[in-house]
Amino acid sequence: MAIANTSLYEPLIESTASALAVRLGLFEDNLVLNCEEIGDGNLNLVFHITDPKSGKGVILKQALPYAKVIGESWPLTLDRARIESSALVKQAELAPGLVPEVYYTDQTLAITVMEDLSHLQIARKALMDRKKLPLLAEHIGTFLARTLFYTSDFALKPHVKKRLVKQFTNPDLCKITEDFVFTDPFFDFESNDFEPELREAAEKLWEDTHVKLEVAKLKRKFLTEAEALLHGDLHTGSIFVSETETKVIDPEFAFFGPIGFDPGQFIANLLLNALSREEQDQDFIFEAIEKAWNTFEVEFSAAWKKDSLERFSEVEGYLEHTLEQIFEDTIGFAGCEVIRRTIGLAHVADLDTIEPYSRRIESKIQALELGKKLIKNRLNINEPGQLKRFFRHAIAR
Amino acid sequence: MAIANTSLYEPLIESTASALAVRLGLFEDNLVLNCEEIGDGNLNLVFHITDPKSGKGVILKQALPYAKVIGESWPLTLDRARIESSALVKQAELAPGLVPEVYYTDQTLAITVMEDLSHLQIARKALMDRKKLPLLAEHIGTFLARTLFYTSDFALKPHVKKRLVKQFTNPDLCKITEDFVFTDPFFDFESNDFEPELREAAEKLWEDTHVKLEVAKLKRKFLTEAEALLHGDLHTGSIFVSETETKVIDPEFAFFGPIGFDPGQFIANLLLNALSREEQDQDFIFEAIEKAWNTFEVEFSAAWKKDSLERFSEVEGYLEHTLEQIFEDTIGFAGCEVIRRTIGLAHVADLDTIEPYSRRIESKIQALELGKKLIKNRLNINEPGQLKRFFRHAIAR
Repeated sequence: MAIANTSLYEPLIESTASALAVRLGLFEDNLVLNCEEIGDGNLNLVFHITDPKSGKGVILKQALPYAKVIGESWPLTLDRARIESSALVKQAELAPGLVPEVYYTDQTLAITVMEDLSHLQIARKALMDRKKLPLLAEHIGTFLARTLFYTSDFALKPHVKKRLVKQFTNPDLCKITEDFVFTDPFFDFESNDFEPELREAAEKLWEDTHVKLEVAKLKRKFLTEAEALLHGDLHTGSIFVSETETKVIDPEFAFFGPIGFDPGQFIANLLLNALSREEQDQDFIFEAIEKAWNTFEVEFSAAWKKDSLERFSEVEGYLEHTLEQIFEDTIGFAGCEVIRRTIGLAHVADLDTIEPYSRRIESKIQALELGKKLIKNRLNINEPGQLKRFFRHAIAR
Repeated sequence: MAIANTSLYEPLIESTASALAVRLGLFEDNLVLNCEEIGDGNLNLVFHITDPKSGKGVILKQALPYAKVIGESWPLTLDRARIESSALVKQAELAPGLVPEVYYTDQTLAITVMEDLSHLQIARKALMDRKKLPLLAEHIGTFLARTLFYTSDFALKPHVKKRLVKQFTNPDLCKITEDFVFTDPFFDFESNDFEPELREAAEKLWEDTHVKLEVAKLKRKFLTEAEALLHGDLHTGSIFVSETETKVIDPEFAFFGPIGFDPGQFIANLLLNALSREEQDQDFIFEAIEKAWNTFEVEFSAAWKKDSLERFSEVEGYLEHTLEQIFEDTIGFAGCEVIRRTIGLAHVADLDTIEPYSRRIESKIQALELGKKLIKNRLNINEPGQLKRFFRHAIAR
């Protein structure tokens, strides 16, 4: 693909990662640094480099030329490091404080050096720990509104938008989503991964022509609609949190796609977490979904009124129509994400750690029902306040 | 934009155009050639170079770095010559015999040398002359089905599709359509051009919130939906015809856009011609529209069944849904085209030559009504056979 110098690429190890950080002037050269490879993703090395005396640290992320999850046999372009660092820079400009700061990038080595966020916790883990995260929903709503509105045709001049679409063309990473979110889980494909007890429910899904037709339409949106620069992988494992801070990380899947995809993935992962909770603990999740969407809607609308370059923005009903369309897509994409995280290749810990096993299976069957119903009923769910009742109804057996 | 060597560019004149054709080996160098600049477009020089003895000829088309219609003050990228020649080559491969053959291209001089089609007539002129064109509709239906299906995600591998989208990024020419088809005619903008007698109808259009909301949605599709490689300017002035041949020319507006745009422009220009006819002469037009769409539908469906790479293509109802969506878009885009050709910057001779003047004004007011009704009712028009009745109803006052 777009990498010219793959021959100069080599994966770093802890000592060379530290040495690079010193060479970049991020640490003084007489320090004894700690360096630990902490990557738990599938596609990258992640080095956490710290000066134990000052406590100062940086993260050095290096893309691997293959996907670890399947082994070296599945090559992946290193160009995603360029995509990731460019997306982080763009998002920092549009949603300041909500993404890690980028200190340095090297396209040949596929490296991004960025702000150390080790004082924060991954949102998925925090939600599994039942932590209160009072600002998560509002922060993500703001992140979505600002990054999506300001990279859309509503805010960008046509030439600028089209140049960015080219810059963020990301076929390798899009292919992962096209296959593992929108295709494989809806057919009896080898890449799927689920417990034998789920086979009956999975087969029911594969025979459900209505669901598959709707997923076909949603996949087509993902393939063709270049509405805005998406994060592209906005699950709760891509968000660092504390009670006061939220940082969205890992935008290596960034590309111009349908706006509803990002909020859809975020909401889906909250719903997956809700499935792992007892009913009395679920309210925080539904409140978070409502808060995130309402914040998105308020801030998207404010940006539209303040900064839209589109002459038709003044037409009565156009903003409302646009938000309705985005919400409809959001619900549909959320349904796809819920299903693929249940029977597809990549699971979520929220479901996979449910104990006892019988309850885990039950929750996963509920997840499949919920996903199908979100996909089929996305036109009938008009606002996030309806989701709690819809969820309860979908999982009642 | 993408042109590195604009300093080496110079517009040809008749003598240098002939000399180039000889240098390219298209004619022997001892011949006395005729060369005539026959461009009547707004953006290009077109040289017709012939050997009067053998009758052999070629067309040499050179992009100008500005739009003639507004004068040199409106610069336009020469990159459109690359777009045009690449599109012609791609279309020739997909729809053999339905586009002129390309003999040579030079990106620095923004030149395409191609097959001489001077034995054919421009379809708009032929239709205005009330010629029988027994194969036009079928040929265009085939052209549309093959060029659009085989450049869509249904037929292309994801990487190939995304590479082509980048290759055919065409911001300058898209901007012309975004402004002059989808924006200016729907507001009281200076670029609009119409007779004073149309002002009342134009003002009614500009106050019609329903129409404007629907046009906003159609414009958004044009801006964001990269479904297939469009011709991008498929009016009847972009088609050469005889009773036996059809050649689609001038794809300099080519880019990846919504599939319905091409059939929409074609159908709109047939409807504009119908408006210039007496009722008893209109049947040929409605039959042509029906034939073109039915051919498109049959050939698109055949290609889908034979060559779709999309796993969801097998899902019951997906082909039908896709065709319905394309038809709905087609009708909407046709409505926009009918309106912009009536009160926008670029008119059509079909309407502008209607005599007497009072009948011309009447037809143009009918065109505005027709355009609005197509845009507003595109969900209710389900097949092209309904268009004749719809047309009659829309223009009845």
